[in-house]
Amino acid sequence: MKLNKSLLVGAGLALMPTFALAQDAAPTFDEIGPYLMTTLLFLVGGFLVFWMAAGFAMLEAGLVRSKNVTTQLTKNIALFSIASIMYWLVGFNLMYPGEWLVEGWLGPFFSITSLEPVGLAAADASLDYASVASDFFFQLMFCATTASIVSGTLAERIKLWPFLIFVVVLTGFIYPIEASWQWGGGFLSEMGFSDFAGSTLVHAAGGFAALAGAFVLGPRIGKYKDGKTIPMPGSNLTLATLGTFILWLGWFGFNGGSQLAAGTVGDITDVGRIFANTNMAAAAGAVAALILTQVMYKKVDLTMVLNGALAGLVSITAGPLDPSLFGALWIGAVGGVIVVFVVPLLDSLKIDDVVGAIPVHLVAGFWGTMVVPVYTDGTSFVTQFIGFAAIGIFVFVVSLIVWIILKSTMGIRVSEEAEINGLDVSELGMEAYPEFSKG
Amino acid sequence: MKLNKSLLVGAGLALMPTFALAQDAAPTFDEIGPYLMTTLLFLVGGFLVFWMAAGFAMLEAGLVRSKNVTTQLTKNIALFSIASIMYWLVGFNLMYPGEWLVEGWLGPFFSITSLEPVGLAAADASLDYASVASDFFFQLMFCATTASIVSGTLAERIKLWPFLIFVVVLTGFIYPIEASWQWGGGFLSEMGFSDFAGSTLVHAAGGFAALAGAFVLGPRIGKYKDGKTIPMPGSNLTLATLGTFILWLGWFGFNGGSQLAAGTVGDITDVGRIFANTNMAAAAGAVAALILTQVMYKKVDLTMVLNGALAGLVSITAGPLDPSLFGALWIGAVGGVIVVFVVPLLDSLKIDDVVGAIPVHLVAGFWGTMVVPVYTDGTSFVTQFIGFAAIGIFVFVVSLIVWIILKSTMGIRVSEEAEINGLDVSELGMEAYPEFSKG
Amino acid sequence: MKLNKSLLVGAGLALMPTFALAQDAAPTFDEIGPYLMTTLLFLVGGFLVFWMAAGFAMLEAGLVRSKNVTTQLTKNIALFSIASIMYWLVGFNLMYPGEWLVEGWLGPFFSITSLEPVGLAAADASLDYASVASDFFFQLMFCATTASIVSGTLAERIKLWPFLIFVVVLTGFIYPIEASWQWGGGFLSEMGFSDFAGSTLVHAAGGFAALAGAFVLGPRIGKYKDGKTIPMPGSNLTLATLGTFILWLGWFGFNGGSQLAAGTVGDITDVGRIFANTNMAAAAGAVAALILTQVMYKKVDLTMVLNGALAGLVSITAGPLDPSLFGALWIGAVGGVIVVFVVPLLDSLKIDDVVGAIPVHLVAGFWGTMVVPVYTDGTSFVTQFIGFAAIGIFVFVVSLIVWIILKSTMGIRVSEEAEINGLDVSELGMEAYPEFSKG
Repeated sequence: MKLNKSLLVGAGLALMPTFALAQDAAPTFDEIGPYLMTTLLFLVGGFLVFWMAAGFAMLEAGLVRSKNVTTQLTKNIALFSIASIMYWLVGFNLMYPGEWLVEGWLGPFFSITSLEPVGLAAADASLDYASVASDFFFQLMFCATTASIVSGTLAERIKLWPFLIFVVVLTGFIYPIEASWQWGGGFLSEMGFSDFAGSTLVHAAGGFAALAGAFVLGPRIGKYKDGKTIPMPGSNLTLATLGTFILWLGWFGFNGGSQLAAGTVGDITDVGRIFANTNMAAAAGAVAALILTQVMYKKVDLTMVLNGALAGLVSITAGPLDPSLFGALWIGAVGGVIVVFVVPLLDSLKIDDVVGAIPVHLVAGFWGTMVVPVYTDGTSFVTQFIGFAAIGIFVFVVSLIVWIILKSTMGIRVSEEAEINGLDVSELGMEAYPEFSKG
Repeated sequence: MKLNKSLLVGAGLALMPTFALAQDAAPTFDEIGPYLMTTLLFLVGGFLVFWMAAGFAMLEAGLVRSKNVTTQLTKNIALFSIASIMYWLVGFNLMYPGEWLVEGWLGPFFSITSLEPVGLAAADASLDYASVASDFFFQLMFCATTASIVSGTLAERIKLWPFLIFVVVLTGFIYPIEASWQWGGGFLSEMGFSDFAGSTLVHAAGGFAALAGAFVLGPRIGKYKDGKTIPMPGSNLTLATLGTFILWLGWFGFNGGSQLAAGTVGDITDVGRIFANTNMAAAAGAVAALILTQVMYKKVDLTMVLNGALAGLVSITAGPLDPSLFGALWIGAVGGVIVVFVVPLLDSLKIDDVVGAIPVHLVAGFWGTMVVPVYTDGTSFVTQFIGFAAIGIFVFVVSLIVWIILKSTMGIRVSEEAEINGLDVSELGMEAYPEFSKG
Repeated sequence: MKLNKSLLVGAGLALMPTFALAQDAAPTFDEIGPYLMTTLLFLVGGFLVFWMAAGFAMLEAGLVRSKNVTTQLTKNIALFSIASIMYWLVGFNLMYPGEWLVEGWLGPFFSITSLEPVGLAAADASLDYASVASDFFFQLMFCATTASIVSGTLAERIKLWPFLIFVVVLTGFIYPIEASWQWGGGFLSEMGFSDFAGSTLVHAAGGFAALAGAFVLGPRIGKYKDGKTIPMPGSNLTLATLGTFILWLGWFGFNGGSQLAAGTVGDITDVGRIFANTNMAAAAGAVAALILTQVMYKKVDLTMVLNGALAGLVSITAGPLDPSLFGALWIGAVGGVIVVFVVPLLDSLKIDDVVGAIPVHLVAGFWGTMVVPVYTDGTSFVTQFIGFAAIGIFVFVVSLIVWIILKSTMGIRVSEEAEINGLDVSELGMEAYPEFSKG
């Protein structure tokens, strides 16, 4: 999604004398037009990806039982807020280290993000890119998305505060470090790894952090009993559907904005391709899950259809630009198929993923990453696998360590009684639907 | 909404030599600015209209009884997904046949939509229009909207799969064929018919398809008893209100994007006019229904207010540009009045329209189409009527045939027992609100 | 947010001869680009602020008890619709009187807003600003927001129609008059008062109108009993959370659009700064309330976290451009702290504010207004205080008079029986959740 920012800044500096001269006259639209359009792309793309935070909140609130809804909502708004602060405090500059660094990401550990001055002169702008503020705003949303993925898997049994502490580490350090390997111009980008908008960097990474948490935390009480998986249906499928539609909408910004440019005919046309392909992959994922659940279970399963659409979206995210619409269709459809098979598979392994985030984000993220070479020249399956594995191992291991530390210090799981009565009463003392009696 | 694409492509070709020369130097913003802005309009307009799919889902989920909510949600996400695939597979090229065709829409029956190459050169772009990908993305959303309208009317008694098969036919064939008559440069546009964003082509068409379905399907059990209409109140008016706000928001893209250009002062100013008028018509429709239900029934009826706003939106859709704000006000207000009178009228005819889609989309669509000549020069009431009638008859008759075929083959209605117990149990085995006991 | 429109029109007129000449040739993007970009900013910003109307509706519907939900929804869609009409009929031209006026706001009392002609020529456009239609559309949303704030405070006991009559006065007269003092080039802007996007003009003004209403209306039955405050928990915290996310999203348009320009490097970069700062302030407000409620009450309070985010947003609204990200953080955090302390304070004063609108919009609005001089040169605490006080006193006193008149004529409060049974039954005869039995 991102060239090394330092290179861009360098290029900007090199051009400065020219623009300093040009500024005596007002800069022309030929000079500033691309900057305006790309900045606008980041702002619009950014608010769409922001909206995904609401999508995750609704999806997860709809898929947990009503006794845990308030807690789930609290986690979602809190994690987004924490990500906003941590990505400013540490993450952004950790992910995109400045050019003054000799080596990688260790240098500017605590360099805090700052924006351009108010009323920036054209001569001081990176006219070949976009405003830092808009870029920061856009990138921040990706960091927050990674954390959103984790909260769903671990729902209904994790304590609030240990979860939020994990989010601090994830959004301040884990995500920025692994994302810098590719989008910060690190070793994966040098190897030729390709992950356009983050099937691996965002979605699989979130999935690995969630998986590590699920291992340490264990399944919900009563979920696996006598070798059987006990269904624990979500309390509100309307909200889950709303959340899916919100995510689908936000994904146009997620993938489209990752073109990182909108000021030439080629770039804006590419953004259009990305929108069309993103939509197609989601549609195909939904239809695949629709048909497959009908065939396999004789009844359509709405939660599978919703997750099928999301898996289609994750699948196309590593390469939303190059495939044809037909390519987007089959790539997305395979994503939908993955969900239908991996959800029960995880249950058979007794990995309790409340909302299906691991099939959707990790497994479909793997699929999306591995299929890139089919349509994108200059990429290879081997490199794609190495990139996925490197990020997967790093995120999983570090997350596992953090979860274990949290477990052995403050504890991460609520008491058995609290879990049975619901986290809303035990953790927050506040029910989401106090007037609706339970059936 | 659309000039004949083939003409535009032709114009683009004519200009190519110039641009091919210009490309030796980088193209200037004077050359590419309009293309960038119009493409952006389609992308932003398109994601707003996409959002309407969520609006319909929420509106309908809120207006059906809770025992049918999961099914209604499933239909909504499935129909959008199917529309996305069918419009690519058949619809788009059926609706906008290429210039190489001698005659209308029969030629490129199975020509599948493909997009421009990645990184399109300015010399190869339709610089007087926009990117094909963005145009496809935008047009697709209109096709899906037509199908969304149908699902509300037929709720609470239709089987899932026959409904989805109808959607295949509607979005792949019926809508593209009738829409090509006007927006594909067909006979209606040659006659001078005027339907800016689709009061007839989208909304009334969806309404006619729904009406045909309602005839074949019959009313819900117990809806009409001893000459009386039994109220079956929606299960969640918050969702219905949310859905209405979503639709209202999406409509700015629906009508504003239909300007099909944003790269000149005149065009962007027109888009602004359309936004202001669209908002005014919705507001007036809501206020009209608010006052009228108070006067007629001594109590305000929220569902009428919501449908009043929607009817105001449909009413202005055939001509959102030319009226003054006062014009938008009275046109929208009449839409609101229509809803209040037509909802009980349909019930007296024992046409069971669960969410009021026929009054809102068909009848207000008729009103919006017929009122165009008041503000738009060069249009006539006779032509408007002919256009509305042609599309109405075509959509109604073809839909009727399809519904009858579906009924006589696989059956379209669930069993009496299934209907009474709710479609969520019988069709899907999955309740939307499993924990909330019924009152 | 707004320079005196009359000055801009004047400037536009002065430039006309030049453009009239230029028009013989097509205008270049250097001439029209800024107009296109700023108009686009208003359209996108405007639809985002429109979306805030849905946010208020969901927030309030979630925070009232289920017996009053339909009424609250009705108020919200009705107030937005009324604002749309009144701001056209009176408000816009009252707020921005034309240059032909000698003195302030009394002149064009009933001048109705009209838009530019269709297909405006570049020579006739205010090329140094934006289209009137887009400006009207954007400004209208601010007027409606003011009214949205009032409805939450007065929920669960006010009659529908007196409330709507108050909205007519507020959106047609009170808001436009006080807003003209600053954004219409009135005496506050001449004094050097600074309120970028309306912490005082919109949010505190709405809060003062609500406060006056709360005084006249009195608290809900049973809210304050034997010196204690009886909690009346909201019926649906998922909706309240959704509403908060919607408001947060809409606020990017609210603050970002208030830059009123997007066609230069400086302007679009500033819009980016505003987006980043707005997000940071909301995040900080949420985190502050999260930590503070944990510390004070040993349990996190989700409604406080939601209101903390909103208070952070209100706090940054008076000056979202000039602060650094760190500035936005602490300004927003103080907003979150304010909410946690002021909510119980109001209760101790027996001022019953159902959704916490007074702490969020009035008190955090005061804070946001007073903190402006810390980062914005040329502003002073004294002037900020005078501006806040002038608007506060005006809005409060006029609102008080209107509420008293309404009370003494038609009555503003439902009967005791109606309040206990719920307004949905007594006022509308329509329940929001008819199938969910009460706990």
